[in-house]
Amino acid sequence: MPSVLTIAGSDSSGGAGIQADLKTYAALAVYGMSAITALTAQNTMGVTGVHEVPAEFVAAQIDAVFADIVPDAVKTGMLANAAIVQAVAGKARQHAFQKLVVDTVMVSKSGIRLLSDDGVGAMRELLLPLAEVVTPNLPEAEILLERKIESREDIRDAARAIQAMGARHVVIKGGHQKGDTAVDVLFDGREFREYSAPRIETASTHGTGCTFASAIAAFLARGESVPAAVGHAKDYVTEALRRAYPIGHGHGPVHHFWRWWGEGP
Amino acid sequence: MPSVLTIAGSDSSGGAGIQADLKTYAALAVYGMSAITALTAQNTMGVTGVHEVPAEFVAAQIDAVFADIVPDAVKTGMLANAAIVQAVAGKARQHAFQKLVVDTVMVSKSGIRLLSDDGVGAMRELLLPLAEVVTPNLPEAEILLERKIESREDIRDAARAIQAMGARHVVIKGGHQKGDTAVDVLFDGREFREYSAPRIETASTHGTGCTFASAIAAFLARGESVPAAVGHAKDYVTEALRRAYPIGHGHGPVHHFWRWWGEGP
Repeated sequence: MPSVLTIAGSDSSGGAGIQADLKTYAALAVYGMSAITALTAQNTMGVTGVHEVPAEFVAAQIDAVFADIVPDAVKTGMLANAAIVQAVAGKARQHAFQKLVVDTVMVSKSGIRLLSDDGVGAMRELLLPLAEVVTPNLPEAEILLERKIESREDIRDAARAIQAMGARHVVIKGGHQKGDTAVDVLFDGREFREYSAPRIETASTHGTGCTFASAIAAFLARGESVPAAVGHAKDYVTEALRRAYPIGHGHGPVHHFWRWWGEGP
Repeated sequence: MPSVLTIAGSDSSGGAGIQADLKTYAALAVYGMSAITALTAQNTMGVTGVHEVPAEFVAAQIDAVFADIVPDAVKTGMLANAAIVQAVAGKARQHAFQKLVVDTVMVSKSGIRLLSDDGVGAMRELLLPLAEVVTPNLPEAEILLERKIESREDIRDAARAIQAMGARHVVIKGGHQKGDTAVDVLFDGREFREYSAPRIETASTHGTGCTFASAIAAFLARGESVPAAVGHAKDYVTEALRRAYPIGHGHGPVHHFWRWWGEGP
């Protein structure tokens, strides 16, 4: 019975954060659990408030899970601040997290900071060395590396540099690039793999990053290799974007349940 | 596109609370959203910690949802304290909640209080009068009424008394009764309906109440009448109990996705 624990923030409108993660696990037939790091008051138009959870209580949630159900994979999303990153890294070592997927959530689509500056430093130093897979988009890779990334060769250099921070695999997501295809680049310290999909023209992009990282964790929990999990996650998210139906007045969520609900519920 | 907002606590182990609610909405093909009232550090054996969310932030989450996506039904679960009950009741009036299902969560399976004494009073006075459906089990009905409920006639009297508090429909759940069948009693102020199902012998009962109330909300959001929604919710939960597979060392969760995953993932 594969299971995944997500350690992330909550999105009241259900499209991103632990809600996107739990929906992804449901869609991919793995048992989902969650340790919540922060609550956001949020909808498809933006974030109107953040309540950060005390780091000790994030740790208590992780302990409660591991005392009973050892997940086959763990995914992290919004971690808010350095104290929470430190707590999560400490628990990752203590409980010997298997298959840790670190989604480097830093800024919301609407521009709200979801990780403090010292949180970025703590993520780089404490959490990335424990990651099986880390999934920055281009803006996040630029923040991690403190430099601009523009050309195809810049992306490969960035993947090398982030992998050298200690993550075993790096996926640099191409969703923020221009062009007709979205190309994700996976680097494992030795070779590069590229995953291409047609760019989907849609306003329903809320939660795309959370969903992709969670899908990788779900396929890893089911026993797949990292290259296979990344490919299957990319296929799942591409279809979830393509089949999305409008919800809300801003960037609506992807359609997590396209396999089950079809074009609508 | 039917949608439901749950206003409830979070269960880190994924079996109860907003996790059970979101899984139920996914299984029943309605779009799920959540305003979180409290975090619990919890597993299938018990609750090891509770972090109550400030009432104003519960209100902020509800406001963010209603500013963008008006849900077709709202369900409440763990509300923790009187301030949160007051905030939720205020927002229910302000936003004119449609089809409010109040699950009268008071005590965890392991005996931890999930609603303070003054919270019970606030629920009785402020929230029940706004409810389309309220779903106490026998111990909760006893706390609401401050009297013992033992006979079949006691149950009907209790349903009358709780309905008189202002809820348009009351379902008193029979899961805590002895016997081969579990009988739920629905009262709408005029007539009684009984819903029977064989009692399922299983340790996997974690989140049963959350799942039942959420399933009622989901079927209401899809346009069903209250009697039909209660019947379909009962069928769904009975099957989720019957098909549950073991997770954890205590009372494991029901199997929310039996329609899709079959006997296992």
